[in-house]
Amino acid sequence: MHKDISVIAFDADDTLWSNEPYFREAEDRFCDMMEEFLPHHDVSRELLKIEISNLPTFGYGIKSFILSMVETAISISDGRISAQDIEKIISIGREQLHKPVEILDGVEEVLAQLQNKYKLVMATKGDLLEQEKKLINSGLEKYFHHIEILSEKKTENYQKLISHLDVPPTNFLMIGNSLKSDIIPILELGGYAIHIPFHTTWEYEKVDSEIDHPQFKKIEKIIEILEFL
Amino acid sequence: MHKDISVIAFDADDTLWSNEPYFREAEDRFCDMMEEFLPHHDVSRELLKIEISNLPTFGYGIKSFILSMVETAISISDGRISAQDIEKIISIGREQLHKPVEILDGVEEVLAQLQNKYKLVMATKGDLLEQEKKLINSGLEKYFHHIEILSEKKTENYQKLISHLDVPPTNFLMIGNSLKSDIIPILELGGYAIHIPFHTTWEYEKVDSEIDHPQFKKIEKIIEILEFL
Repeated sequence: MHKDISVIAFDADDTLWSNEPYFREAEDRFCDMMEEFLPHHDVSRELLKIEISNLPTFGYGIKSFILSMVETAISISDGRISAQDIEKIISIGREQLHKPVEILDGVEEVLAQLQNKYKLVMATKGDLLEQEKKLINSGLEKYFHHIEILSEKKTENYQKLISHLDVPPTNFLMIGNSLKSDIIPILELGGYAIHIPFHTTWEYEKVDSEIDHPQFKKIEKIIEILEFL
Repeated sequence: MHKDISVIAFDADDTLWSNEPYFREAEDRFCDMMEEFLPHHDVSRELLKIEISNLPTFGYGIKSFILSMVETAISISDGRISAQDIEKIISIGREQLHKPVEILDGVEEVLAQLQNKYKLVMATKGDLLEQEKKLINSGLEKYFHHIEILSEKKTENYQKLISHLDVPPTNFLMIGNSLKSDIIPILELGGYAIHIPFHTTWEYEKVDSEIDHPQFKKIEKIIEILEFL
């Protein structure tokens, strides 16, 4: 990696801690509940459609996910879903908000070793309150110079973040699990990016293309970055 | 006001633009819908109870408000509420998200006049996506040096904001409509605060006490601040 890198930004969900598996677990419970109306797989497809159409209005995060589950239930049951079942759906989401934060392997060692050599930033998208709570529960806040919670990880939002941090993009490295949200916008801006795929990825975040770029690297485990940083 | 003031922070909802009336209008429609189960006033009281108990989990904003209305409806109907009515409740909230942003009288003149003399900041609590959208729709973004969206307006969060802005609290003035969220925490930190009451205040934000403090002022209209700033 380039010797000028001075700021390293880390994505949070599924890069620092596990997140997507909780969504998949909640979705499975929801699809099971809905099986009297539609097969599991079709419920899941319908939910994804409603989630994506709700993104511009409700954004990311668990409250938005709950509202999409409730709307999916009403739609696929043709209005026959009971208030009790809707209550159950809300409580699936509510439980999700209280799951423990499981830090991924190697994360704490990496942050501890890099914090004196670089300015470390956490850059995550999603719901403000949810992300703040996870950060506090993770105990990782102390490693970061700056925390940025974005409503969406678009190029222009990263542009603002990089200007705010007052570095040229060529001094900026982003590390994350989503090609779409963490890697492609940064390469567009002229920054460096490292992709660490996570075993579970939300359909909406999936990107087909393989990336071949001089400022891009793909690794298996976060601990590997210590070899070249 | 003190001659050292260099940063002026403005609350947004019901200080820069109208917000609470939309919540009251949505609540009225919800209470009307629920009248077959409980009188209007009792529905409203039940909703407030559920909203407050949901704040630590769901936070502020419309998604949280929708979830509280749905839970209130299920609770007061003893599970007899229909899926169609729940759909209607969600659409009340959805409409609220698409209301126009009505800038309050004098706001634009004040921001335009102060922007070259002071560093202007917008400090609002609530949902990230909602507040960002309102800011963009308001057209007021250009006046602000910094935008801070807080999950909660607690003293420690203001402390972080003031440190981030790199000024002592005695150079910081906050202007807002809520004594609880905009005024009391700032006076505690040693800053200056101006209260501009709005005609509609959410029950939860109401504070009984009158404030008498050398760094505090109460005015009727935002335009008045130009007389002493």
